[in-house]
Amino acid sequence: MKRREFITKAGIGTAGVIGAGTLATPSIAGSHSKTMTIVSTWGRDFPGLGTSAQRLAARITELSEGAITTEYFAGGERVAPFDVFDEVASGNSQAYIAADYYWRGTHPGFAYFTAVPMGMNSPEWNAWIKFGGGQELWDEISGGYGLKALPAGSTGCQAGGWFNKEINAADDLKGLKMRIPGLGGTVMSKLGASPISVPGSQIYENLVSGAIDACEWVGPWNDYFLKFYEAAKYYYTAGMHEPGSNLCLGMNASWWGSLSAHEKAIIETCCYEENGYQYMETMANNGAYLAKLVEEQGVQVRNFNDDVWDSFGEAAEEVFEETRDHSALAAKINDAYQGAMREIGGMNALFETGYINQRNRILGIEV
Amino acid sequence: MKRREFITKAGIGTAGVIGAGTLATPSIAGSHSKTMTIVSTWGRDFPGLGTSAQRLAARITELSEGAITTEYFAGGERVAPFDVFDEVASGNSQAYIAADYYWRGTHPGFAYFTAVPMGMNSPEWNAWIKFGGGQELWDEISGGYGLKALPAGSTGCQAGGWFNKEINAADDLKGLKMRIPGLGGTVMSKLGASPISVPGSQIYENLVSGAIDACEWVGPWNDYFLKFYEAAKYYYTAGMHEPGSNLCLGMNASWWGSLSAHEKAIIETCCYEENGYQYMETMANNGAYLAKLVEEQGVQVRNFNDDVWDSFGEAAEEVFEETRDHSALAAKINDAYQGAMREIGGMNALFETGYINQRNRILGIEV
Repeated sequence: MKRREFITKAGIGTAGVIGAGTLATPSIAGSHSKTMTIVSTWGRDFPGLGTSAQRLAARITELSEGAITTEYFAGGERVAPFDVFDEVASGNSQAYIAADYYWRGTHPGFAYFTAVPMGMNSPEWNAWIKFGGGQELWDEISGGYGLKALPAGSTGCQAGGWFNKEINAADDLKGLKMRIPGLGGTVMSKLGASPISVPGSQIYENLVSGAIDACEWVGPWNDYFLKFYEAAKYYYTAGMHEPGSNLCLGMNASWWGSLSAHEKAIIETCCYEENGYQYMETMANNGAYLAKLVEEQGVQVRNFNDDVWDSFGEAAEEVFEETRDHSALAAKINDAYQGAMREIGGMNALFETGYINQRNRILGIEV
Repeated sequence: MKRREFITKAGIGTAGVIGAGTLATPSIAGSHSKTMTIVSTWGRDFPGLGTSAQRLAARITELSEGAITTEYFAGGERVAPFDVFDEVASGNSQAYIAADYYWRGTHPGFAYFTAVPMGMNSPEWNAWIKFGGGQELWDEISGGYGLKALPAGSTGCQAGGWFNKEINAADDLKGLKMRIPGLGGTVMSKLGASPISVPGSQIYENLVSGAIDACEWVGPWNDYFLKFYEAAKYYYTAGMHEPGSNLCLGMNASWWGSLSAHEKAIIETCCYEENGYQYMETMANNGAYLAKLVEEQGVQVRNFNDDVWDSFGEAAEEVFEETRDHSALAAKINDAYQGAMREIGGMNALFETGYINQRNRILGIEV
């Protein structure tokens, strides 16, 4: 039996996912097989985030024909979601799948490798990372903590969030207790809101109990499954806080360094394949689920008006100045990011965005 | 010596590209290695289109550790660019890298798998292909000619083109001899222009000699290298004709069917990796090269106004009706495409596009 056939018959080639509490599998591809333990921040089988992470883990085993055998643990199955950074930096596991802005308390520069308020959307960010010098800066900040990260997915431009009243001016945000993490939360606090950070799995109960007044999570497809519409009827489209939420595979740098060039190539190509897939899958589903939210659940869709956007913009500028003040590395990352955004973003508006504006106007395409 | 090391030392693992006139390489990975001859429509080393195709060919050899050894021929090196379809359908070569709308004379449905006027941009199209049923329709039309295609790159939203006068109304297009292929050319002909289809390598001489009055090719990065600015000073941003030019690897279907599941997975992941890379690379470079065109070459950048766009929209509608009338399959593809565009495109405008509009307005980002 060929090695590949054995792997497929053992159910690893297509699944590659080990359930909670399962012990590490013994090597099944002979003495040269390497085990790659992946810990994730996402819930098992959660549509979008969870399923994408699981697909990536399985693909690495499949494409390497088991030379790298992954074992995947969803959030909480091996370590708590926000403990995956330490788990991998220490070498206890080989990789995490997460959003690197979760580590901005460790260093604010990490935020730029997921999303920052008023920043780049995912296509722009990917252009910067792969062909504009972004990966080198990411390697520099990650390397300082014994890590090496690669892009591994995106949920696109995040929804502005769920509110139980209309937001017609920045004043309407004052006093709101809102679940919104990262630098977006800092922007909100400058406008008088109280940002609160809770994991996705706990948002719903906080919103229903009234412990929070508002929340953001991802977008129509992901948000639908958390049932926020039961506690808040106004759903705002594009927000300023995460214009492109880019997820990653963060690996222990020593382990990464021990791999052969071919093993590295397998992991890199799997990351970039999934990087595209998750963005496509989100885009394919967001349209259909936005329609379900409106038609099934009676959700009221709103866009923030220009006045609210102007307030977001002013507050975001303050946040960036504070980030620059943290350290030379934070300033270097911020300045490279902002420079790339201006060069790519100006052109992007004339081509991709300018086109969509005209097409939808002429064809009457609207939600 | 391990097989992988041997391949790398032989210069195949990193290059994988065989020069013009070189005979097929003998199998270097033992008796189980398969040779995959790839013929392309793009010029050797042409920045963007050519380099992306060569990178994909090399990556398949590298990731498969030579189990699939590619030999790559640029346009004209083995067969003429537009002969690659027959070359692969006949089984004489295993795959082409091209834009499938070149075959719309064979069947107009092929246009939908590159780009159609007033259609989806690349992120929307990829969402449809991978997660919205598009690949199944592509398989149906390709299968009728003994082919199997996968996405393998995108040059994004094409520029409106190069003109030697301003275009302020549809009347300004009347009588223009313009190089613009595909259904975009048909739209132009309905507005009184004379569309002409010539390969990229011959556009410049036609423009300089005055044999044509205007042309479109790709976008700032690719166009810069063809020096159109020497013969036409007005450069229009987003055009209607190719809102997202999606390129592909088209394989002989019998050969594809003969591959193992693992070999198929290797080819698929390489295609999707390059699919992302080329779009990112184009986006990263278009901003810088648009600036070079303006600052180095004195090019005047223009956007088509709403009146011109309205005329494009009316003409495009006629073109789609004609395409539907061709056959049941053409109608089925058109209707699925238009349906996906409305569902995805309405949401896309509220999130990605709506966000970019606000960000650039607030931050004053413009070219």
